[in-house]
Amino acid sequence: MRFTKMQGCGNDYVYVNCFEESVSSPGQLARAVSDRHFGIGSDGLVLILPSETADCKMRMFNPDGSESEMCGNAIRCVAKYVYDRDIIHKPQIAVETLAGTKIISVNTDENDIARTLTVDMGEPITAAADIPVIANASPVMELLLSAYGRDFHATCVSMGNPHAVIFIDEDVSTFDVERFGKVFEQDEHFPHKANIEFVNVLSPEHLKMRVWERGTGETLACGTGTCATVAAACLNGISPRKPVTVDLLGGQLIIEWRETDGHIYMTGPAEFTFDGEYHHG
Amino acid sequence: MRFTKMQGCGNDYVYVNCFEESVSSPGQLARAVSDRHFGIGSDGLVLILPSETADCKMRMFNPDGSESEMCGNAIRCVAKYVYDRDIIHKPQIAVETLAGTKIISVNTDENDIARTLTVDMGEPITAAADIPVIANASPVMELLLSAYGRDFHATCVSMGNPHAVIFIDEDVSTFDVERFGKVFEQDEHFPHKANIEFVNVLSPEHLKMRVWERGTGETLACGTGTCATVAAACLNGISPRKPVTVDLLGGQLIIEWRETDGHIYMTGPAEFTFDGEYHHG
Repeated sequence: MRFTKMQGCGNDYVYVNCFEESVSSPGQLARAVSDRHFGIGSDGLVLILPSETADCKMRMFNPDGSESEMCGNAIRCVAKYVYDRDIIHKPQIAVETLAGTKIISVNTDENDIARTLTVDMGEPITAAADIPVIANASPVMELLLSAYGRDFHATCVSMGNPHAVIFIDEDVSTFDVERFGKVFEQDEHFPHKANIEFVNVLSPEHLKMRVWERGTGETLACGTGTCATVAAACLNGISPRKPVTVDLLGGQLIIEWRETDGHIYMTGPAEFTFDGEYHHG
Repeated sequence: MRFTKMQGCGNDYVYVNCFEESVSSPGQLARAVSDRHFGIGSDGLVLILPSETADCKMRMFNPDGSESEMCGNAIRCVAKYVYDRDIIHKPQIAVETLAGTKIISVNTDENDIARTLTVDMGEPITAAADIPVIANASPVMELLLSAYGRDFHATCVSMGNPHAVIFIDEDVSTFDVERFGKVFEQDEHFPHKANIEFVNVLSPEHLKMRVWERGTGETLACGTGTCATVAAACLNGISPRKPVTVDLLGGQLIIEWRETDGHIYMTGPAEFTFDGEYHHG
């Protein structure tokens, strides 16, 4: 089986071009290829398929074989793949996902190579019941989270999945994300648990963030978490409704909560790492 | 750059055929390709090169870019690579390493594919000063190691690197290898630190082992540690000087401390995982 390894901000998947290849048991294949010692090694498997309603379709499978809806870092890679390899060579590409059809704009260099991609991530959800978070106020901007004798205040936003964004004064580089993330993820205020973002404000248009993903732990980058962070910064009057740069462990994303349509736009890189031929398909 | 990913008992490296490819800065390349999110992902880089004194030569580089001497799991992969791909199609292959030239016997199936490989690992070193371990007796078979209120007794053997082998009664599957390995690795008896093996005796010819590698932590398999374990079992009268099967987290190895020449022979698998073309060489 031919495959391509790509990464966006360090979030790495095995991509299979199903315009040419066919995959019969994607869940089983995801388990095999994701293993970092016995397989190809990845955060999961992404199939790029023909679509009847959009330019193409992506299906994502986690390392445990379960299917997931969407990932902001992966969908940028899908758009770069189909653009650079001339499968769909359009400046705006519609990708069908389990979370609906997403529109990605391709930002090219002078050689017509996709360098960054801008994903319309839709509108943030701020109503407490829809995030969901158990709180009286909406939007939820002062949720008290306490652990190990320390109090923090979180702003809660859903981007299709629940996030609690905590602005901290101490340097997030050395902050113990695991210690507090592990506890807050399961806080009683979050009936579906929550992803927890710890954020430094470097300037109104420049944030620095580390993320604790529910059920996973700390990761190099989280697209929806970065969008939620900038939405929270706007709600709190920290950031303007302009492009805001967010530094993550795995790279940089630029997020804009656009005033004209209320949607959040995420711009970031996508890279080919290697192409391969897998021997145990 | 063309490369091949292979694994032996889960110990996985990026192999480059330097009969055809040339690599100018292997340490730098090792750092880049070993990264499991931004690179190919591996335990390191192995170059397979022409040799003036043997059939071929292997050079190994760690993920931090430093060069290492030899690895029992990697050298089996090197032998399978040159045998199956008709670079050196001989039943016994001499591989030059920084730890000297090693002889590997190729065990083939009916299609002349290398299934397992037997490596002559040389003689175990049991003199305390040469391991090195600070102890009065040689061989060192009752070294007291204590931590968290518990006492263990270790048998110490060097296979070119120092090992302390501890036979335990409780199930090694659930034993807290990290807790005790971390302390014993740095025990004052080991001037160069030591790799620590925790071992269950299933029968005289069947052991089960988990390994804590100094400077690394627990790994799926350790070739020299498995050899040291069987040598220790023979010294203690637990195992005979016959082939002994050892179950590791990453697979099985068969170790024989042969009476005829006093050498230890390690037999185990090696597998191709995938071939690739790396884009950032």
